[in-house]
Amino acid sequence: MRKTGEILVVGLGPGPDVWRTPEASAAIERATDLVGYEPYLARCPERPGQTRHGSDNRVELERARLAIDLARAGRIVAVVSGGDPGVFAMAAAVVEAVEADGAAGDLEVTVLPGISAMQAAAARLGAPLGHDFCAISLSDNLKPWALVEKRLRAAAEGDFVIAFYNPASKARPTRIFDAFELLCGLKAGATPVAFARAVGRPDERIVVTTLADADPSIVDMATMVIIGSSESRLIDRPGGTPWILSPRQSRGGAA
Amino acid sequence: MRKTGEILVVGLGPGPDVWRTPEASAAIERATDLVGYEPYLARCPERPGQTRHGSDNRVELERARLAIDLARAGRIVAVVSGGDPGVFAMAAAVVEAVEADGAAGDLEVTVLPGISAMQAAAARLGAPLGHDFCAISLSDNLKPWALVEKRLRAAAEGDFVIAFYNPASKARPTRIFDAFELLCGLKAGATPVAFARAVGRPDERIVVTTLADADPSIVDMATMVIIGSSESRLIDRPGGTPWILSPRQSRGGAA
Repeated sequence: MRKTGEILVVGLGPGPDVWRTPEASAAIERATDLVGYEPYLARCPERPGQTRHGSDNRVELERARLAIDLARAGRIVAVVSGGDPGVFAMAAAVVEAVEADGAAGDLEVTVLPGISAMQAAAARLGAPLGHDFCAISLSDNLKPWALVEKRLRAAAEGDFVIAFYNPASKARPTRIFDAFELLCGLKAGATPVAFARAVGRPDERIVVTTLADADPSIVDMATMVIIGSSESRLIDRPGGTPWILSPRQSRGGAA
Repeated sequence: MRKTGEILVVGLGPGPDVWRTPEASAAIERATDLVGYEPYLARCPERPGQTRHGSDNRVELERARLAIDLARAGRIVAVVSGGDPGVFAMAAAVVEAVEADGAAGDLEVTVLPGISAMQAAAARLGAPLGHDFCAISLSDNLKPWALVEKRLRAAAEGDFVIAFYNPASKARPTRIFDAFELLCGLKAGATPVAFARAVGRPDERIVVTTLADADPSIVDMATMVIIGSSESRLIDRPGGTPWILSPRQSRGGAA
């Protein structure tokens, strides 16, 4: 089967250009078409002759299908994603759409990794992900909340550091409270917690606290939440936000 | 307290320069001193006037202490790490050493994120990390193996996709077999498994299989292992390695 066009699933990273890989920048430059959620397209430099196909949030599959149609027509399509497209982002939607289309054989699809929001947050926080961790999306758009609860229990049982993606949105403002309530019953009140909002952007805001003192009402769509293991600890820094250290050495886990 | 030198904890990414962020490249260029494991230093371009302090593997804390000493002497020190320094890498060692030194207040320490091995592997594999996942280091140098087992059980119970860091080394050649044996008793034989070795480097090698068919003897220090959830599935691609899709939509988890 002859290969026709090409789909590049590109991770822009969390925001600032200094976190965008040269590979991602080259792909955006080379593409004939950019497909993506409007705010992500706005981060890509304008180039004459390149067509932009902006879309609203929450239409990942439609966006992926559009990319397939364009690639079939011989275009070089960059599907742009914030963060890493492989982590709760467009790679899964594109792979799913290619599978459904039966097009897996005749389209060239390449995923280009990016810095994910969890990593940007961790960089600001010292070393919260220095030890075993898990990443959970709190969105129940596409999965039952009971599965989120099951995973929160398992994450606590395994004494993992926990990172929340999609912790809240206008459509689901209360899920973050449910998650904290559940974890407060399973983990020590002194467990370090970070709310890292818009890391790397002008409105960046970092709050470091403990599970007992955490106020989930400050969480929004742009916030990454990181909750420590039983061995994670706060390290005060004069004049700065405390660090969270999840130490490399473990005594065995008390959870 | 007057700030003296500066420590930059820099993630080089998994290997190729196209995955190194502009921020990381600028930090390596700006540093007066590079500190790191020899193979990582070898990835940094030579610059006249810059001093290199190469070290062996497994001396993270000594390396971090050296960085502190150099920074105290007014140097700009880049501690270079493969992948993301925040993910099972040098950030935790540096934060720990700074804490032990009592130097948290008077040294400027910045962590610069990088693409981690798990993300590079995921990019080659389609979308294995498209849904909730956890990352576990199989090294028992610094934690009891019983804790690894506890986390493997919890990860299976929570039906997470699982990524293994440090899956094997010459000192611990059998732990990967122990881990697979444990998971084989907890997860379906049809669960997708990937061994992604040296992704992005000339000797890259990707093997996609199932838990029942997986042969852990091919795993070495440079291998990232990814094991699916109950909903992850293989997608055949004519002429290519199958993809692994961990779909965005979940029916609820069968684990």
